[in-house]
Amino acid sequence: MTWLDLPDGTGFGPDNLPYGVFSTRGTSPRTGVAIGDLVLDLHAVTGDDVHATGSLNGFMVRGPEAWQALRRDLTTWLTDAAHQARVQPHLVPRSEVTMHLPVLVADYVDFYSSRHHAENLGRMFRPDSEPLTPNWRHLPIGYHGRAGTVQVSGTPVVRPCGQRKAPTEEAPTFGPSQRLDIEAEVGFVVGAPSELGTPVPLGAFERHVFGVCLVNDWSARDLQAWEYVPLGPFLGKSFLTSVSPWVVPLAALEAARVQPPARDVPLLPYLDDTGTGPWGLDIAIEVRLGGQLVSCPPFAGMYWTPAQQLAHMTVNGAGLRTGDLFASGTVSGAEADQRGSLVELSWGGQEPLSLADGTSRTFLEDGDVVTLTATAPGTGGGRISLGEVTGRVEPAR
Amino acid sequence: MTWLDLPDGTGFGPDNLPYGVFSTRGTSPRTGVAIGDLVLDLHAVTGDDVHATGSLNGFMVRGPEAWQALRRDLTTWLTDAAHQARVQPHLVPRSEVTMHLPVLVADYVDFYSSRHHAENLGRMFRPDSEPLTPNWRHLPIGYHGRAGTVQVSGTPVVRPCGQRKAPTEEAPTFGPSQRLDIEAEVGFVVGAPSELGTPVPLGAFERHVFGVCLVNDWSARDLQAWEYVPLGPFLGKSFLTSVSPWVVPLAALEAARVQPPARDVPLLPYLDDTGTGPWGLDIAIEVRLGGQLVSCPPFAGMYWTPAQQLAHMTVNGAGLRTGDLFASGTVSGAEADQRGSLVELSWGGQEPLSLADGTSRTFLEDGDVVTLTATAPGTGGGRISLGEVTGRVEPAR
Repeated sequence: MTWLDLPDGTGFGPDNLPYGVFSTRGTSPRTGVAIGDLVLDLHAVTGDDVHATGSLNGFMVRGPEAWQALRRDLTTWLTDAAHQARVQPHLVPRSEVTMHLPVLVADYVDFYSSRHHAENLGRMFRPDSEPLTPNWRHLPIGYHGRAGTVQVSGTPVVRPCGQRKAPTEEAPTFGPSQRLDIEAEVGFVVGAPSELGTPVPLGAFERHVFGVCLVNDWSARDLQAWEYVPLGPFLGKSFLTSVSPWVVPLAALEAARVQPPARDVPLLPYLDDTGTGPWGLDIAIEVRLGGQLVSCPPFAGMYWTPAQQLAHMTVNGAGLRTGDLFASGTVSGAEADQRGSLVELSWGGQEPLSLADGTSRTFLEDGDVVTLTATAPGTGGGRISLGEVTGRVEPAR
Repeated sequence: MTWLDLPDGTGFGPDNLPYGVFSTRGTSPRTGVAIGDLVLDLHAVTGDDVHATGSLNGFMVRGPEAWQALRRDLTTWLTDAAHQARVQPHLVPRSEVTMHLPVLVADYVDFYSSRHHAENLGRMFRPDSEPLTPNWRHLPIGYHGRAGTVQVSGTPVVRPCGQRKAPTEEAPTFGPSQRLDIEAEVGFVVGAPSELGTPVPLGAFERHVFGVCLVNDWSARDLQAWEYVPLGPFLGKSFLTSVSPWVVPLAALEAARVQPPARDVPLLPYLDDTGTGPWGLDIAIEVRLGGQLVSCPPFAGMYWTPAQQLAHMTVNGAGLRTGDLFASGTVSGAEADQRGSLVELSWGGQEPLSLADGTSRTFLEDGDVVTLTATAPGTGGGRISLGEVTGRVEPAR
């Protein structure tokens, strides 16, 4: 299928072709496409200066026809041997590149769309109420996060300081978070903007969303618990959100589309996706702590799809900008080993995780490294990779 | 004090000198400074291309020394008659200019720092609990809003649609908001960025904040009430936030600085401003509905100052970017005619406001025009103006 000699099961075959922003020693950041263990220098191979701007935004704003055209070209260039002589000089080993934040993030929205995650948190934190709030089945709950602290994979996770108050304490105290956590999520990158005042219906999802990345929405549970009533999470989240460097085009996930779970209640028309193609996605996430696999959250089971999230987010007329990022919320499955956060995996810190090195964890310790990876069915019959997002916890400053 | 013939009580004398982005017919947006009824074309008079970029961001990122230097120059040019011949050709009547959004907004944060506002909302919506949540006196509660829908004064306010559910209803319904409201606020524009991982202490407020504007954070109370538990306001706010076009430099507010109200509880050291200069600000806001004055919210009484808001917002290591906007939250005073939102002025819709035209209002009707203006003591002995932010409600689409 390609004139390149790709490693077996690479996940970065010609049916993936994710976009990222890379540099090599002494060069400035530019756009590349991952193929096998290589990066194709898109600026060099196309001569189009939009790929030398240091982010994908300039290309994304051109819209879905431009995305499709370039993907067609890339497929031809990498599969038809007639292009080998011209293309090969612009391939760089991925081991030699530094990856950068791929997108200038405009607005960042985080949803809460895993029913298992919402139920787990409800059971832990509001044990006397129904686990789901009354609105949960009727709309994809979400909130705005801090776009300025979205960073690329590998950015150190400096343990945040802040206020927290245990129920037994009279007054809050200040210090490094004692309940530093992860949230394994999938993020969706908006490429084509929309006009203020005009909602984006379910059927227009593909015309606005450019691609998909992995997101670790680092969370300080103790800060969050004290601050979040009544206006929601703030400092417990805003210190860092890490994203994977390769943005997988939506077109590469065509074979991963699945029906979302059956819904409990009738949905209002703007959220009712029974008449449109399904936008559940069979993305299998793996969470590793210190190299050890600790969870396998299945994105396919998410109650709300990204198309529903986008329709909801804009139904009040809110406009989209190129570079908007919206994430799914923590992906948790029904099983204990499918939970996408430590607060769930350790059940609020009451059931520590045993690690292979003989230690155990409730929340993250300084020096811990957490890595999320994911794969999905590709159109070529195998599985494509969404790459990874990783971070190492550093002590509070 | 100036060679210009300024109107009496202009509010835009040489002790104000706010920055904005303007255009005249057939020209592109550039930076100007308001003086009396005129605008000084900063690009033309300085020849500095940073003032032709269509936003203040390029100038703001240069930092506080650059801000001070230009303000000194402007003061000299506009007060020393030796500069008249050179400067006068670059003055344009304000009646001939179109104003644009002055700042490319990076992140938008909205606080909740008026005790009277928080207590009023607590009494209305949680009548069986203490009006203030337990955290309120210990930290300035805030949340991230949608930066992409911050627009300049005059942008039409299209009535948003969305889900709402009355307590008596079984399921939510969809439609135009029936409780469209205003929030009279003061906004602070970050000029100089900060590094990820490094908090900005109280004493560094002036080194990062460039200036001040007025903010109307339009709110759909019915959408908000249904969606906001547990992650905070989202679509009830994200359809539009309007800002005044003139950003008043912090230096122009030196004479407006006042002590904030006495605090009820000891503050953690990072919020304790007893040792630093006070950053309460004596800004007097006026709210007009259809031209009629309906409220006079006093900013001087805000419990949390903008310096405390900034220190809190960054204490977890969150970095600042040039163009970050943080707003105070609704400004409400102790008296009934000092409330900064209609939900307070009409006490949840139970006590309609009588207007001079014989009509009454609980929430906004299509066609209503709301205008916020404000003044503060200037260093010249009079009062300086913060300009105005206005918007007209259009029917839902």
